[in-house]
Amino acid sequence: MAVYTHLSADDLAALIGEYDVGELVSVKGIAEGVSNSNWLVETTGHDGSGERFILTMYERRIETSDLPFFLGLLDHLSVRGCPVPRTIHDRQGAAYRTVGGKAVALIEFLPGVSIDTPRPAQARAVGEALAGIHLAAADFPGRRANAMGLAAWRSLLGDCGEAGLAEIDPALPALVAAELEFLWANWPADLPQSVIHADLFPDNVLMLGNRVSGLIDFYFACTDITAYDLAVTHAAWCFAADGTFRRPISEALIAGYESRRPLSASEREALPVLARGAALRFVASRAYDWLHTPPGALVTRKDPMQFARRLEFYAAMGAGAFSAGAA
Amino acid sequence: MAVYTHLSADDLAALIGEYDVGELVSVKGIAEGVSNSNWLVETTGHDGSGERFILTMYERRIETSDLPFFLGLLDHLSVRGCPVPRTIHDRQGAAYRTVGGKAVALIEFLPGVSIDTPRPAQARAVGEALAGIHLAAADFPGRRANAMGLAAWRSLLGDCGEAGLAEIDPALPALVAAELEFLWANWPADLPQSVIHADLFPDNVLMLGNRVSGLIDFYFACTDITAYDLAVTHAAWCFAADGTFRRPISEALIAGYESRRPLSASEREALPVLARGAALRFVASRAYDWLHTPPGALVTRKDPMQFARRLEFYAAMGAGAFSAGAA
Repeated sequence: MAVYTHLSADDLAALIGEYDVGELVSVKGIAEGVSNSNWLVETTGHDGSGERFILTMYERRIETSDLPFFLGLLDHLSVRGCPVPRTIHDRQGAAYRTVGGKAVALIEFLPGVSIDTPRPAQARAVGEALAGIHLAAADFPGRRANAMGLAAWRSLLGDCGEAGLAEIDPALPALVAAELEFLWANWPADLPQSVIHADLFPDNVLMLGNRVSGLIDFYFACTDITAYDLAVTHAAWCFAADGTFRRPISEALIAGYESRRPLSASEREALPVLARGAALRFVASRAYDWLHTPPGALVTRKDPMQFARRLEFYAAMGAGAFSAGAA
Repeated sequence: MAVYTHLSADDLAALIGEYDVGELVSVKGIAEGVSNSNWLVETTGHDGSGERFILTMYERRIETSDLPFFLGLLDHLSVRGCPVPRTIHDRQGAAYRTVGGKAVALIEFLPGVSIDTPRPAQARAVGEALAGIHLAAADFPGRRANAMGLAAWRSLLGDCGEAGLAEIDPALPALVAAELEFLWANWPADLPQSVIHADLFPDNVLMLGNRVSGLIDFYFACTDITAYDLAVTHAAWCFAADGTFRRPISEALIAGYESRRPLSASEREALPVLARGAALRFVASRAYDWLHTPPGALVTRKDPMQFARRLEFYAAMGAGAFSAGAA
């Protein structure tokens, strides 16, 4: 949540001059993203009527070699009517440029507000939008391995160590060990794959009322099990702040998804395992960040136990977490 | 440089609903301000044509009892044609509201970009704009003591202690002690006073080309020696990143100021002392923050020695820092 790099007005004006977007009118560093710096940029627009953009500088965690995949995906989905921001190309047609040794991209600005406590109609719209990107990405030629898959969870959790995990919560080491073993043995091998967002938290969805106006932050997007993306979204959206499962949100999310891309029987059957994996994925990254963030740093550490509890919920409920009916 | 408080979409929509500005369209936390959280808010506008605002939440350092002064000053100056953002009042006419126990204000959004390396024409425009607020504030009824005056510098530097100052630079304790004594004995007593901005760094000026489109962040504004504000602005604007004095910027800043408000002989004579005070003021606050910012905190600590060197420059140059002619 910060702007890590200072760009001077001259740097910015020179950069903006490489695009057919008119002249720089305003720029504000925005407090979003943990892997990059972002600015909300306003220009006079290519026709003088004013335009806004998000300027992203890739600071860390993101490999420049992945940018053609991420930025090309946005263009691919945007052209197909998905509510994702398109990449603005410079006058030479490049999707990204380099400033001071760092890659930067100019991205379309989309309106909308991120929702903390979704209503069912909003969850339904999110399900529809998620299915929409799975369908629209079917003919996207890019491929990218999931750098945050099962092997990465094991590695991150191994780095935390039993002592580190126990420091977070005394019950965490045993939970993690049992779950890693279970998932390693039971992870589905034959489900359909596609490009997935892999991180569709409420933060990454912009809404206007009940309409999804933007799906953003595709920097974990990769090629992996399609239904795993629904499981990640389920784990991210279907619990109240106090941890309570919100069944009406679950039902609406899945119904919205299936209205555009019905799940196969084997996908539906796999949802409990996929959701346990999704929950463990966030336990792993949050536990790692928890133990590696210096005390006093002005970064909000996200509680790994929030997803440990969701993991236990999925393990206990099995298919019952995904069915319609009473809570 | 952060957003310290989370406001949910529901909180924001409810807050915006108290103003005649239409409906919420977008909100982005912006990485500006160290004493408050700021969001760039877009609404449909009172007439549906779209409007933008800065939403400020006062987090610390700022007393709610000072808000009528700060926000009333913006309205006063804005009505008189100064390029400052006006305060948006709610439907009941209030200049600020309270959300979760914290005061918030909705402020006009102004275009423009902050300049790192000003050109003389830009410095001239800044001088003109500064004189403009001094003149326009003459009939502003509010008064506020300068909480960052000579007594505060002494107190902050005393809190740092000799050992703390020496940790920053071995030469700093002696410089500070001598300068505090000098300023205490020589601070001018009879110069004209007015409302001053007191912190007009390049960060706090928005420009479009050579035009000042916005003077912002009036949260140090107070009633104090008018010419001291020019001295603060001089100390903040007239040095290159490597510390070199930029005489053409100094000349243009002062000429621009005097084109609208000529200095009296005694004001001009006092500039060297006032500038030494201005430089010591930023040595004091930066040294204090330097020693009180936890290591690892993601806040950029500003180097106190930058202003210690400017202080030495002003002490060595006397009136020569403010005259026209060769460097």
